[in-house]
Amino acid sequence: MGVLRPIGRIHSSIRTRSQAPRQGSEGAPDAWLEVESFAVQALAGLKVGDEVIVLTWLHRARRDTLKVHPRGQKHNPLTGVFATRSPDRPNPIGLHQVTIRTIDHHRLLVGPIEVIDGTPVVDIKPVLC
Amino acid sequence: MGVLRPIGRIHSSIRTRSQAPRQGSEGAPDAWLEVESFAVQALAGLKVGDEVIVLTWLHRARRDTLKVHPRGQKHNPLTGVFATRSPDRPNPIGLHQVTIRTIDHHRLLVGPIEVIDGTPVVDIKPVLC
Repeated sequence: MGVLRPIGRIHSSIRTRSQAPRQGSEGAPDAWLEVESFAVQALAGLKVGDEVIVLTWLHRARRDTLKVHPRGQKHNPLTGVFATRSPDRPNPIGLHQVTIRTIDHHRLLVGPIEVIDGTPVVDIKPVLC
Repeated sequence: MGVLRPIGRIHSSIRTRSQAPRQGSEGAPDAWLEVESFAVQALAGLKVGDEVIVLTWLHRARRDTLKVHPRGQKHNPLTGVFATRSPDRPNPIGLHQVTIRTIDHHRLLVGPIEVIDGTPVVDIKPVLC
């Protein structure tokens, strides 16, 4: 089926999964989203202050995980990954609702965002609500 | 990079792109989401009445489109696809906030959802807000 092509990449101070907050709202930093040159035109219309959803490919995730203990806590009962935000899931696409802080031609400063440095970005969309 | 593997498929009364409302809130019907047998375990914890985000692969979309006239109206100025919900975009992933109406083992009735019959589903997630 679909093969994803990165439209950009995240440059973050978060280097490992263990350093990453579980949600953007839990103390995640801002990060630079560097857009590939082929996709820069597709940014036209985005403005500083806009809230957008950044879709990432969580390249360090496990794709064979179907159930998890939510938040990695053993006392939370095993739950299907579709009822959780676990990065480990059959198609590890991350959704991150962020604010655009700065636009510098092909780079956007966005946050808060909890992904690790080097994470590929696959899309940017208007917020759902 | 990532190759998506469908976790299910939508069975809808919408058969063509021209029949599809532009947003779920614009009169879209409910539809059955039939989950592949390998992924059924990952549904554990979802309940009737839950709001979830269904991620689809918009398999009829054009991936070389970077700017569009929003809502297909020529009088709307050309805008980068990352500032719009156009299905035509480099990685045509659809986000659909829906309510789970019925759960029947490996099938979920969800809606409203504006995608066409046969659209592959790649993930199900809790709502962002």
